[in-house]
Amino acid sequence: MEKQQNKGTGSSKLRIIPLGGLEQIGLNITAFEYENTIIVVDCGLSFPADDMLGVDLVIPDVTYLIDNIDRVKGFVITHGHEDHIGALPYILKQVNVPIYATRLTMGIIEHKLEEREMLDNTRRKVIKFGQSITLGAFRVEFIKTNHSIVDAAALAIYSPAGIVVHTGDFKVDYTPVYGDAIDLQRFAAIGNKGVLALLCDSTNAERPGFTASEKTVGKTIFSLFEEHKSSRIIVATFASNVDRVQQIINTAHRFGRKVVIEGRSMVNIMETAQKLDCITIPPNTIIEEDMLKNLRPEQTVIITTGSQGESMAALSRMAENMHRKISITPNDTIIFSSHPIPGNEKAVTNVINSLLKKGAEVIFQDVHVSGHACQEEIKLIYTLVRPRYAIPVHGEYKHLMAQARIAKELGYRDDHIFILESGDVLELDRKSAIVRGKVDTGAILVDGKGVGDVGNVVLRDRQKLADDGIIVCSLVLDQYTNELISGPEIVSRGFVYEKEADVMLEGARAVARDAVNGCLAKGQTDWNRMKTIIRDAIASYVWQQTERKPMILPMIMDV
Amino acid sequence: MEKQQNKGTGSSKLRIIPLGGLEQIGLNITAFEYENTIIVVDCGLSFPADDMLGVDLVIPDVTYLIDNIDRVKGFVITHGHEDHIGALPYILKQVNVPIYATRLTMGIIEHKLEEREMLDNTRRKVIKFGQSITLGAFRVEFIKTNHSIVDAAALAIYSPAGIVVHTGDFKVDYTPVYGDAIDLQRFAAIGNKGVLALLCDSTNAERPGFTASEKTVGKTIFSLFEEHKSSRIIVATFASNVDRVQQIINTAHRFGRKVVIEGRSMVNIMETAQKLDCITIPPNTIIEEDMLKNLRPEQTVIITTGSQGESMAALSRMAENMHRKISITPNDTIIFSSHPIPGNEKAVTNVINSLLKKGAEVIFQDVHVSGHACQEEIKLIYTLVRPRYAIPVHGEYKHLMAQARIAKELGYRDDHIFILESGDVLELDRKSAIVRGKVDTGAILVDGKGVGDVGNVVLRDRQKLADDGIIVCSLVLDQYTNELISGPEIVSRGFVYEKEADVMLEGARAVARDAVNGCLAKGQTDWNRMKTIIRDAIASYVWQQTERKPMILPMIMDV
Repeated sequence: MEKQQNKGTGSSKLRIIPLGGLEQIGLNITAFEYENTIIVVDCGLSFPADDMLGVDLVIPDVTYLIDNIDRVKGFVITHGHEDHIGALPYILKQVNVPIYATRLTMGIIEHKLEEREMLDNTRRKVIKFGQSITLGAFRVEFIKTNHSIVDAAALAIYSPAGIVVHTGDFKVDYTPVYGDAIDLQRFAAIGNKGVLALLCDSTNAERPGFTASEKTVGKTIFSLFEEHKSSRIIVATFASNVDRVQQIINTAHRFGRKVVIEGRSMVNIMETAQKLDCITIPPNTIIEEDMLKNLRPEQTVIITTGSQGESMAALSRMAENMHRKISITPNDTIIFSSHPIPGNEKAVTNVINSLLKKGAEVIFQDVHVSGHACQEEIKLIYTLVRPRYAIPVHGEYKHLMAQARIAKELGYRDDHIFILESGDVLELDRKSAIVRGKVDTGAILVDGKGVGDVGNVVLRDRQKLADDGIIVCSLVLDQYTNELISGPEIVSRGFVYEKEADVMLEGARAVARDAVNGCLAKGQTDWNRMKTIIRDAIASYVWQQTERKPMILPMIMDV
Repeated sequence: MEKQQNKGTGSSKLRIIPLGGLEQIGLNITAFEYENTIIVVDCGLSFPADDMLGVDLVIPDVTYLIDNIDRVKGFVITHGHEDHIGALPYILKQVNVPIYATRLTMGIIEHKLEEREMLDNTRRKVIKFGQSITLGAFRVEFIKTNHSIVDAAALAIYSPAGIVVHTGDFKVDYTPVYGDAIDLQRFAAIGNKGVLALLCDSTNAERPGFTASEKTVGKTIFSLFEEHKSSRIIVATFASNVDRVQQIINTAHRFGRKVVIEGRSMVNIMETAQKLDCITIPPNTIIEEDMLKNLRPEQTVIITTGSQGESMAALSRMAENMHRKISITPNDTIIFSSHPIPGNEKAVTNVINSLLKKGAEVIFQDVHVSGHACQEEIKLIYTLVRPRYAIPVHGEYKHLMAQARIAKELGYRDDHIFILESGDVLELDRKSAIVRGKVDTGAILVDGKGVGDVGNVVLRDRQKLADDGIIVCSLVLDQYTNELISGPEIVSRGFVYEKEADVMLEGARAVARDAVNGCLAKGQTDWNRMKTIIRDAIASYVWQQTERKPMILPMIMDV
């Protein structure tokens, strides 16, 4: 720690600036700033909200980093989930600084960058647990935690103004499937040094008690295999949950079953995990899909994506008879080793109903544990780390508030708890902490190749188009005489079934013609004005006929 | 029962034909047919699925009833929820037969019909519990049950082929807030006569145990009032849950608070309930909204709609600062006396987050009980009614399957359990039951004034428009020379932010112009063919530029 202290005077303040992640699940990215150094923890995406029609994903606005690019020393990544790494391929194009992460996390990032041919241009360094890196005024230590993905890390960020601990996403698992339990000893030791602030995962802060160990799921899976010896077993789970897949494979092996991995994202992550020895696959256990036909169903297990009812995932395709090679039969037992993420409930239920209709047995309760700390685990971390300031992170407002309540129960005063908003600049040192100013942040929508070209105007139009469709009214004027020489023609899409609505559309045409002729009679030849008059006339007619408000698009041409 | 048996020979079969309600929550409507008599149990709507863009609600296709209108004797309604009565105003226009229902159920139906000026043209008869009506070959007895709305009934349908019991939506509440407990004695007595078939509510068939009494919620509400004596209390619940509102009002009265009822649907139902003495309001307890300003916050309670996060409901408007008279303050305690209905989770969470951000306390767990029977209650009804055939109803496939499993546990053989689909014709008598044939059914979409004019084509277009917007390409040809004399013009909506995409749109225009000129050079003047060529050319250009697939609408005019 001495080295960094030399760099700063020690009298400056540390600034913590969340650039996303505090208004929604996902989009996690936080800048830590001390004098001339900025480091960035995580760089996640979020999935579009229901009103972001047609949007593929959302990334954070990092204008602040671009504006201060000379000071940005690197991305420090806690773990390999999309909400912590997913925006990297986009943001690196503007903020090309080195990435620091543990082994599997880096493996997943590298796979992403390789797909986009960005690997060669990105500096990367794999960090081991317990190891530190020095980035300008900061030293960052990676601490082992447990989570629903292997190699998750908490960070101890040492600055001249004090130490900050960032938990990342974590849980306490005393009996993890792979690797060690969370390094509570180290949390305690760092706590003993005196910690300025703790940024702690809030996802499960509403839930009392402790999150169960991943191994408990293994036991459940074992019992389910025991009960279903005569059927084929299909297990759906999260693509990145390597430990879960490990346990399913182990169980399959014990029961002498062969395993097929289905779904591109799961295949990718398992390949990476295997390359890095994060998963141990008994020889001759994994088979190719094409081998299924040579085995009796009860000799096989399929581990698949689609546990969230995603329409294009492997399990959904099986349920809808759209999978090229796997058909569901009454001899299938399908296990959802997952919980629906809020918002996905209906999609998951639809898949379950489809599977049940094919006669399969479907098990969707109690074959999952969360990867996030519940209230008692959060208390444990606070008690070991003993931070001066509490900064709940990762979650919606209600989750942050729930962690704030926990901090209060532990004796923290209101002015030592900070529920930040994205962009808030929290300045702190050993004497004080205060939100001073705000930087620009925001959510940038990605749609196809377009990054940021879909904004409020486009979304409002899409919503209107989605609700009631569109009516296009086109007409041709003589550019010299201003006479109507063709049209108006009326075409609609998404409004009514045209074949059965010709009378009404003919009526709309008449209304438009009258509006045009009215304009021309009055010498009204300003096209914008004419378009407004045509639009209003059609809108009013259509509302009266249908009580719908389609978008109305007049197009005037001249010859 | 003698009377009806005289009407039939007794040797014909009873036909049970669900016309909706077995593929989704809602849309409950079932025809019972014996020789020349058809009666219809319930006439519900359902709310649109996520892919039914812009649709307001869904009603059943009753072609079968229309085709057999001479035989249809009436609608027998179990209770006043939308999924059991909501389609009546639409269906009565085509199937104008009398309605039979209990008092509050009829009161709610009458309010609906009155709003649409249909009251005078609709024959109606209020039936008491224990009372029967004779409808052709059937006698129908109304049996008291409990549910999350007052005056819910089960039906015993006596036919010459045997007795069928239909539970409607129900739970067993030994200590109901209003009126009597479910008439288990009567279920037992009818069971003793010998029952052919039981149609039983499946909504909670996946849940073990018993549903708790409505009164337990009253106790919880009392404790919450006790704990929050110094704040204003706002309780959000279902508009139609009269008993819940009764308990909140009682509690408010005990604590000396005045009550405001907020939200049009709740005000309507409470007026009806009060008129029919289904709710007892202590004098001087209810006040007008305008009186709130004369009272201290802790002297008041607001009971409101919006517990499902519906964007236009009163609570949502308060949360978004869009309510004209009520603003949320840190001195508010807001109680969600409800559970999110599947699909509404995110909307509810959004409202909770907004309320918390205003500093209010929000309580959203354990202040609700379900209105539907859990597994042990379902077993109780089966054990009292002892039907020969089990027909699970009300629910998605997974719920029906869960009830089928319960029936199996109770000793029913597979061939005595019928998981029907809408349209299935189940023919049964004391000797056998078999699905024989199918009638036309379906879901008819209502959008504004339009009933049935939005179908698959329109929905597909709306989805496409919602995902990527539209590009309109219009051009003018000379009708004699077939030369391009104006355009092509390109206009887009919901595709890209046009102001920043002029280069690309100019590119699309050039591509369209080349396509048109290519056609004309080759003498290709068939407009449909030209439109296809233009569409393909623009689509391919746009995909290459953006990886989006907007709808492309070429419009050709001639002069």
